Amino acid sequence: MSFYFDVIKTQGNARAGVLHTLHGAIETPVFAPVGTQATVKTVPPRDLEDMGARLVLANTYHLHLRPGDELVRDLGGLHRFMAWPHPVLTDSGGFQVFSLAQISRIDDDGVTFRSHIDGSLHRLTPESSMQIQENLGADIIMCFDQCANPTDRAILETSVARTNAWAVRCREAHPDDTQQALFGIVQGGIYEDLRGQSAAFLQTLDFPGYAIGGLAVGETKEQMCRTLDFTLPILPDDKPRYLMGVGEPDDLAQAILRGVDIFDCVMPTRVARHGAALTPDGRINMRNLQHARDENPVDETCDCYCCRRFTRAYIRHLLKAEEILGYYLLSVHNIRFLIKHVQAMRAAIVGGDLSEYVNAFLQRYLQLA
Amino acid sequence: MSFYFDVIKTQGNARAGVLHTLHGAIETPVFAPVGTQATVKTVPPRDLEDMGARLVLANTYHLHLRPGDELVRDLGGLHRFMAWPHPVLTDSGGFQVFSLAQISRIDDDGVTFRSHIDGSLHRLTPESSMQIQENLGADIIMCFDQCANPTDRAILETSVARTNAWAVRCREAHPDDTQQALFGIVQGGIYEDLRGQSAAFLQTLDFPGYAIGGLAVGETKEQMCRTLDFTLPILPDDKPRYLMGVGEPDDLAQAILRGVDIFDCVMPTRVARHGAALTPDGRINMRNLQHARDENPVDETCDCYCCRRFTRAYIRHLLKAEEILGYYLLSVHNIRFLIKHVQAMRAAIVGGDLSEYVNAFLQRYLQLA
Repeated sequence: MSFYFDVIKTQGNARAGVLHTLHGAIETPVFAPVGTQATVKTVPPRDLEDMGARLVLANTYHLHLRPGDELVRDLGGLHRFMAWPHPVLTDSGGFQVFSLAQISRIDDDGVTFRSHIDGSLHRLTPESSMQIQENLGADIIMCFDQCANPTDRAILETSVARTNAWAVRCREAHPDDTQQALFGIVQGGIYEDLRGQSAAFLQTLDFPGYAIGGLAVGETKEQMCRTLDFTLPILPDDKPRYLMGVGEPDDLAQAILRGVDIFDCVMPTRVARHGAALTPDGRINMRNLQHARDENPVDETCDCYCCRRFTRAYIRHLLKAEEILGYYLLSVHNIRFLIKHVQAMRAAIVGGDLSEYVNAFLQRYLQLA
Repeated sequence: MSFYFDVIKTQGNARAGVLHTLHGAIETPVFAPVGTQATVKTVPPRDLEDMGARLVLANTYHLHLRPGDELVRDLGGLHRFMAWPHPVLTDSGGFQVFSLAQISRIDDDGVTFRSHIDGSLHRLTPESSMQIQENLGADIIMCFDQCANPTDRAILETSVARTNAWAVRCREAHPDDTQQALFGIVQGGIYEDLRGQSAAFLQTLDFPGYAIGGLAVGETKEQMCRTLDFTLPILPDDKPRYLMGVGEPDDLAQAILRGVDIFDCVMPTRVARHGAALTPDGRINMRNLQHARDENPVDETCDCYCCRRFTRAYIRHLLKAEEILGYYLLSVHNIRFLIKHVQAMRAAIVGGDLSEYVNAFLQRYLQLA
């Protein structure tokens, strides 16, 4: 049994755990930086290791199109290809074929779409998604699902039914979790009964982990919290729970309080490229004139390379001059900020003072004082 | 005397030396990566240190315009601003006002130009170039000179006369080399008599180092070598000699054989952004299909992070996907390649077998076999 999950401590609904995989153990809760095209944008894997990252997400859709999952397989799989020795998670491609592909046509069997790169025609089905993810070789792989607007009930009903049917086919195509653990994805938007149907059905397939999909795609924060409130209790306690695409610092706190174990988000690297830095006092725009002569680090509480060595004045200069080093340094900081935040919450769960940490963090981060 | 130069070994005209500065000693010959806007493009200073870089060049013209040399001075100077504890060299701004500025009008007193960033009007004179370079605080600073087409004799005659007159004013404005050593720049294109006039005149001002300007700007390699052949012998043996803007591996070899000590060039980072890698077998295009499944490193003889950890297949994927990590990894490799090449030549001078090294290197690099 190379994949298993231990909950080592709980506080309320929150859990501190250890997720064991073929490529090593991950302390949970864990935040996974996103390496869309087999690279976390601007950040070498050596630096991710230094920052405490232990799980990286890569995209099935992107890597299937370029360089091709068979090429990655022939070169020894994703870990070796991207020189990342720690665990990797791949998504199913489902989200991207709906959001990125130029034309996509969905039927009960799968999705036909045109590549956003060259317009070439492709088809993804539950079976081909499994094949691609097996070729890529990640430690955690995801069922092929249909994502939908979280407040459009009519479409969500179809989406849940189809996601359930596809989950059966994914499970059949990938019955053995010893090399790669296949997670089911709970859909149903903000509707309690739909989430309930989805979660109950997926558990009949006995996945080694469950994801909550279809959030952080336009609903309010209150809707997200309420959805977590009624979805997490109906997932098994002894399996890891993964909230897909969520990475805002306040959302991480709310979700960890409610019992989520795994997160991923492009936010820290994406906002870095726009010149934004995460700090305990909220997100700040490092291009602002106020930083022009500021000799302080971006975040004086941070231990990352950016904050240990460089001033706000220098970071602002790099951004104004459109120098890549500025995007790199802010990416390093933003990822480290989220990892440190999640590590602090894990320590607080173990220490029994999670709610104090979260209250103090939110008070300051959201400037509620 | 915080700035001085020791020649510790010679072989023929080639010299191995040590250049002492306020920010530490540099073994020569030395190749300086270029940090145009106070950053070597894509490469953090920590990595430059790891790669053995000990001297970085920064641009007076760019930093005067953005973020402003007074801001850099107020924040403690360039070393502190860019978090680079080792020696820094600044150019005079002369080259950029002719090549980059939108409109430049030159007179005997200086140059009036419009910024390439926002069109604002600026003026550089020998005195203001000294003031800006003093504000920036580099260890080695350069006289404000007039660069010209190396084969246009009529313009070169004016350029040499003006560069000489400006050198007098630079020396008067910056008479003391203890904090920052001011180098004179020999002009004169490919003409022996003009180089002779320039070199002889500058030596009356007793600079602590001499640069050869106006090469690697369009002349043939034979013209460059010939110019070095008649220019280096008329420079003082006990002062460092800096060949500006030269960095092609074969040019470095030819120039070191002839007695040059210091080099700088944007080439390694610029060609990296175009997907080119320097190897012992010449420059190769890493975007080529032949690398798509190649599990070898870019350069199997190299000890850099790129070559130790990543395959050609992965680098090619990053380039095709336009991922910044690809430009970073090739920049790291290309800079390390040049530094290692120059270090090997220094070791060969010390060991007495420089010509064997250079012959073998050129044979392979230029594919002369």
